[in-house]
Amino acid sequence: MERVAVMGAGSWGTAFAKVLADSGTDVVLWARRAEVADEITRSRVNSGYLPTTVLPPNLVATADAGKALDGARAVVLGVPSQTLRANLGQWRSALPAGATLVSLAKGVELGTLKRMSEVIREVADVPEDRVAVVSGPNLAKEIAAEQPTATVIACTDHDRAVDLQQACSNSYFRPYTNVDVVGCELGGACKNVIALACGMAAGLGFGDNTMASIITRGLAETARLGAALGADPLTFAGLAGLGDLVATCASPLSRNRSFGERLGRGDTVTQAQDAAHGQVAEGVKSCSSIRELAARLGVDMPITDGVHGVCHDGLDPRALTAALLGRERKAERQ
Amino acid sequence: MERVAVMGAGSWGTAFAKVLADSGTDVVLWARRAEVADEITRSRVNSGYLPTTVLPPNLVATADAGKALDGARAVVLGVPSQTLRANLGQWRSALPAGATLVSLAKGVELGTLKRMSEVIREVADVPEDRVAVVSGPNLAKEIAAEQPTATVIACTDHDRAVDLQQACSNSYFRPYTNVDVVGCELGGACKNVIALACGMAAGLGFGDNTMASIITRGLAETARLGAALGADPLTFAGLAGLGDLVATCASPLSRNRSFGERLGRGDTVTQAQDAAHGQVAEGVKSCSSIRELAARLGVDMPITDGVHGVCHDGLDPRALTAALLGRERKAERQ
Repeated sequence: MERVAVMGAGSWGTAFAKVLADSGTDVVLWARRAEVADEITRSRVNSGYLPTTVLPPNLVATADAGKALDGARAVVLGVPSQTLRANLGQWRSALPAGATLVSLAKGVELGTLKRMSEVIREVADVPEDRVAVVSGPNLAKEIAAEQPTATVIACTDHDRAVDLQQACSNSYFRPYTNVDVVGCELGGACKNVIALACGMAAGLGFGDNTMASIITRGLAETARLGAALGADPLTFAGLAGLGDLVATCASPLSRNRSFGERLGRGDTVTQAQDAAHGQVAEGVKSCSSIRELAARLGVDMPITDGVHGVCHDGLDPRALTAALLGRERKAERQ
Repeated sequence: MERVAVMGAGSWGTAFAKVLADSGTDVVLWARRAEVADEITRSRVNSGYLPTTVLPPNLVATADAGKALDGARAVVLGVPSQTLRANLGQWRSALPAGATLVSLAKGVELGTLKRMSEVIREVADVPEDRVAVVSGPNLAKEIAAEQPTATVIACTDHDRAVDLQQACSNSYFRPYTNVDVVGCELGGACKNVIALACGMAAGLGFGDNTMASIITRGLAETARLGAALGADPLTFAGLAGLGDLVATCASPLSRNRSFGERLGRGDTVTQAQDAAHGQVAEGVKSCSSIRELAARLGVDMPITDGVHGVCHDGLDPRALTAALLGRERKAERQ
């Protein structure tokens, strides 16, 4: 694949740009702030996000979106999920004809309840087979450190997925293709909510059984939502479901997990936000949109309900234990 | 359910006996050594395995197997997998007619390549609907500490599973029923091998992405073996698959994980065994039987192969990375 544009120089955008470059693909990385682009050009480092990573020479940075997009065969969107619509709207006229549009963002848009690939299709006015999604156990700092990782490239157009797979395969990054875009996106969106729940359990002093139980039952409710939206249930047992969820829930690097831990120890959302330098964890927002989507489709999501209650209705985190254990006895797949 | 016998007073046998007793079921716990039974009777503690747990009064202990089995409605087998056949052989004539035989052991028998429920059916000469399996994220120390945990009770006879479910449901232990005995047993047997692989990766200095990738691809190869043996693929996404695997791989309490970590840091199997007070991790043995079973059925299990190579053929643990990343690019469900 010829040149790829990566739009957004946060930790995941920058790490994925490095993955592409390390796979022999030329990359232009767009940074919102000129000083970030300048630093990368000058010293090959993005010190704000990945201070210890030296970026390869076939990765160039710019703060000029038009320059980044010009001639790109694929455009990788690495901006936050709730700002993707606004950002993409500004770039629409500069998107190269025929380019694959690739989403790195994980979430469900507040208000519209749309997945990121749906937002992209709508804003860029492209058919679904031009939109791909990258999802999996992708802690940016570990990938930047070249630790072995597997991931999923999902696109309804298998050939396009294979193209992208070739563009980002290297000795530490192993992408698998998948045609189930809906399942891959939902796995990525719901995992932040489950990670909050795992964090709360850890903050309450519970150990690995409880975490494993929450992960498993959380994945089960994610798969129920997926089934209602036409996803393949097996996707949730794969890298974009289970893999991403486990990495996020187990890792002390995960913002959602840490945020939940504070809530479990008794912090309010505002206190946890203050401790996170003013940032609210993604799951705090997406639990609302996911819960609304589930309600619209009549899907039962007790863990998501519990997280929403803690984050938005002043519920005690111990209520999560009730959500996990307090329901009537039943069969595993009811 | 009336009285239940739990045969084996190791950490999991003792913790599960407590779960039953805390659910209102009377329990007789059989210990091989009279001093263990005496200590439990005298001080309500099994100091060798769960030193900080006080056992409830409706749990009584004995070193007399006949006394434990007499009149039991269910017999829970809590002895190690590779000694189950010999133990059960001694108890055969004393097994109460009609009692449910419940396996807590996880593994595939060396030599015969049989699952534990198969060994039980063969030795006790009972039909498959009398044998149940308990599996899930079950770290004994956490359950003994009454941390919230979900688990699976699998039996081809649904009513028998529900009976057992009622006998062990309480405020911290939530059992789900399942009819897929094969899938639940395989999940439990294979997870020790995957946990060894996760430990090796941790010992090599890799982080949570690598662990999550190994867990996911490890579960995928377990599910492939399961499919060849007639298991339901969705079982592996549940508590006895994913749940048990995540608890085992994430926990520093897991013997297999710790053992693998030593191998990853460069210890030989003998050195790691010395550090583990002479005990070899279960996965070191079961990787051989699982690999043999996979070979017989023509199932590809690269992670199990890698673990076997490290444990038995002097392979460098770095070869696991190759097993994970080095194969040809492909689709996730090929």
